[in-house]
Amino acid sequence: MAKEKKVEQITDMETDFAQWYTDICRKAELVEYASVKGFTILRPYGYALWENMQQTLDAAFKATGHVNVAMPVLIPESLLKKEGELVNGFAPEVAWVTMGGSEPLEERLAFRPTSETMFCDHWSRVLHSYRELPMLYNQWCSVIRWEKTTRPFLRSREFWWQEGHTIHETAEEAEQETQQQLNTYADFFEKVLAIPVVRGRKTDKEKFAGAEATYTVECMMKDHKALQGGTSHYFGDKFSRAYDVTFTGRDNKLQYPFQTSWGASTRMIGAVIMAHGDNNGLVLPPKIAPIQVVLVPVAAHKPGVTEKAQELLGRIQAAGIRAQADFSDNSLGWKCAQYEMKGVPLRLELGPRDIENNVCVAVRRDNGEKTTVSLDELEARLPALLDAVQQGLYDAALKNLQEHIFPASSIEEAKALQSEHGGFIKTMWCGEEACEQKMKEEGGMTSRCIPFRQEQLSETCACCGKPAKHMIYWGIAY
Amino acid sequence: MAKEKKVEQITDMETDFAQWYTDICRKAELVEYASVKGFTILRPYGYALWENMQQTLDAAFKATGHVNVAMPVLIPESLLKKEGELVNGFAPEVAWVTMGGSEPLEERLAFRPTSETMFCDHWSRVLHSYRELPMLYNQWCSVIRWEKTTRPFLRSREFWWQEGHTIHETAEEAEQETQQQLNTYADFFEKVLAIPVVRGRKTDKEKFAGAEATYTVECMMKDHKALQGGTSHYFGDKFSRAYDVTFTGRDNKLQYPFQTSWGASTRMIGAVIMAHGDNNGLVLPPKIAPIQVVLVPVAAHKPGVTEKAQELLGRIQAAGIRAQADFSDNSLGWKCAQYEMKGVPLRLELGPRDIENNVCVAVRRDNGEKTTVSLDELEARLPALLDAVQQGLYDAALKNLQEHIFPASSIEEAKALQSEHGGFIKTMWCGEEACEQKMKEEGGMTSRCIPFRQEQLSETCACCGKPAKHMIYWGIAY
Repeated sequence: MAKEKKVEQITDMETDFAQWYTDICRKAELVEYASVKGFTILRPYGYALWENMQQTLDAAFKATGHVNVAMPVLIPESLLKKEGELVNGFAPEVAWVTMGGSEPLEERLAFRPTSETMFCDHWSRVLHSYRELPMLYNQWCSVIRWEKTTRPFLRSREFWWQEGHTIHETAEEAEQETQQQLNTYADFFEKVLAIPVVRGRKTDKEKFAGAEATYTVECMMKDHKALQGGTSHYFGDKFSRAYDVTFTGRDNKLQYPFQTSWGASTRMIGAVIMAHGDNNGLVLPPKIAPIQVVLVPVAAHKPGVTEKAQELLGRIQAAGIRAQADFSDNSLGWKCAQYEMKGVPLRLELGPRDIENNVCVAVRRDNGEKTTVSLDELEARLPALLDAVQQGLYDAALKNLQEHIFPASSIEEAKALQSEHGGFIKTMWCGEEACEQKMKEEGGMTSRCIPFRQEQLSETCACCGKPAKHMIYWGIAY
Repeated sequence: MAKEKKVEQITDMETDFAQWYTDICRKAELVEYASVKGFTILRPYGYALWENMQQTLDAAFKATGHVNVAMPVLIPESLLKKEGELVNGFAPEVAWVTMGGSEPLEERLAFRPTSETMFCDHWSRVLHSYRELPMLYNQWCSVIRWEKTTRPFLRSREFWWQEGHTIHETAEEAEQETQQQLNTYADFFEKVLAIPVVRGRKTDKEKFAGAEATYTVECMMKDHKALQGGTSHYFGDKFSRAYDVTFTGRDNKLQYPFQTSWGASTRMIGAVIMAHGDNNGLVLPPKIAPIQVVLVPVAAHKPGVTEKAQELLGRIQAAGIRAQADFSDNSLGWKCAQYEMKGVPLRLELGPRDIENNVCVAVRRDNGEKTTVSLDELEARLPALLDAVQQGLYDAALKNLQEHIFPASSIEEAKALQSEHGGFIKTMWCGEEACEQKMKEEGGMTSRCIPFRQEQLSETCACCGKPAKHMIYWGIAY
């Protein structure tokens, strides 16, 4: 008989949330550290999760007319420097290639931290007429930002993402694109990742380097910290002017197009872990789970069990469900713990007694609920059970979000609420950066966004008492 | 009325094949040069072609149990140097990152030229038992090799590819994997890209740096030069030993796994251009064409034409065919030339007279053949016509290959045949590198492969007259 494998323990999230997170990343085999400091390896299970996210997002992008391209990974320093704000924002984090083969380069090349500059440079050479607009481009790639402290998925020197870049004939069209792509992210978070979001605009202090406006979807994790999910930027014609991107307009005159960019990254895997995970490990929304259903035979040595399990697996897969069965000689306990760690949404147990009764037992990962399912109804019941898990995860995450938004009318109150409950603290705000800075220094929070759904909490800024312009959300963010 | 666009001319392939190739790359909007010397941009049409190739190959890899992962793009110099042959092979072409942010790095980092070292380093930390073998990994990414002279798709400093890396319990299993993956490439070239291949083994001189054996699929272009399509390498346990990758075997002792790697790249786009293109532009095999059918309305201003074309387009798309219609106000002549340039396999023309007769005219891109198709039979006839184009392209490419393989019994004869006809020159060979070098210097050809299908042309080596060991193919290669 095989040596019994030990079920690996992870730290409880209540004991040490950060350690719990890292434990899941490693024990669920999502990610592994590399020999290069601050870099990570996406292991097969982590990459499968990313591929499922990519497929859904890519289809949504294509359904709205976007096309994929590939830009060079290296950007000449002079090109990167043409737009001052962008380069100032990213310069401290750039990795530089200075040697090609055995020879020093005449000009050093930046490993892309983001690719606005490359897209603009390309457009400056291929765009001619308003008839070619809009150009709705996207690329899937990795970028490097030389962060000092790193954590898997949340902050690593290399990460994988998509970066959309578009140019439009008019400012209105570009603004619409920015909103449309933000909504694509919001839908993806809510309907696919089962994570409710707050949609809003970033303050000038927090917006993307070089953008006129940055829109964001903000999520809440189980430790009540905030995580920025995806961002969508409106640039006006600032980069077009800096990079001399022009087209002949309907009036036969040279014009500058209006530009957007928008991105979402492997950070989303971190969001899924911290929005849904528990002390037994990862909990995956069925829509992105690499394995949606795992079939675990009980007493598989008894005659007929393995055969019946094989037959059922075939039926489940034929129904379009991503399913696996575990026929290994590990113990039932080990198997259950293992698939819980990996967050598989549904576990089906099938033993000799079940077969006699023509049933199996379905166990939901999100709440442990057991359902006896007639084998005759398997294909009909499993999708409904998976939908129930998806909905259950969303409902729980929504409850967590709704129960952790607190109004405050002063920095002291905001700080006290944050320290007691965590979450988003909403206050009125005058719009001045000085007050944002004050909230950071005295309240320990950054602004998360100015939500699109505004409320009139009071007339005055919680930080300075002057007339308020917006309601704003504050929080401690990943 | 819109300004008539000029139909762009390309150089005839008979006049200047290299210029013809570059013209197609640019005018079919596959690729554009970037500001970074030697780097290219994959434009939407070129990337769509690559995505279709990726999807088919990725599905084939997954069907044989492979999983995708993502390894870091940067490799520490010390790690790269652990296996001497590999680093010697690639060192002259490595791009080095030496600065992170504003600080010089303690150790410089190589932009991956290939990732054997990273996979080995990872496996050295995660592999424990024979039960975890085989590990069948693949990654889709870009790599950099600092080439001196570059050409789109064929040789550029950055290119996109997949690199498969696997480890196995036994040498036999690893050898089998190497062959299986070579066959996957061969099938892909022949059945999807419509390019017949010669399968064989590379000589020691031409094999991958560090490999024990390299297998290859070699194709022939329309100028009768050779192009290496995809390669599959067997490493034995050489890298395992260099990187200390071990596992506990069935005998409870530490063992070294046996390793393979295999790769295919955006070079395949270059192969498609040069295997099928003509003087009107690109010619795409339907299986990878981003647009399989283009519907061009004739006299679209006449009542009912646009409506009927819209209806047909909907029907064609619903039948699972990648189709577009061109309702722009460009002339019919311009449209035809444009879709010929882009290599769209089938063009459907639909005018008022056709509608009256309930037909449309299908024009094959590969041979210009026109077929009148009843609109009632559209969904049934189009797939057959697309299959005919696919088969037509393969047949023509096979004829080109078969008519350009010539036996020779001396270097002089080989050189004369190459100079008169091009193609593969087959000779017997003693197996010595000295003779290979001689053929290169005196005959101007490199060895392409030792084909699996051997013929006994004579008893002696064409270069030195000593007893022959193999029949070998020579050629001038891209």
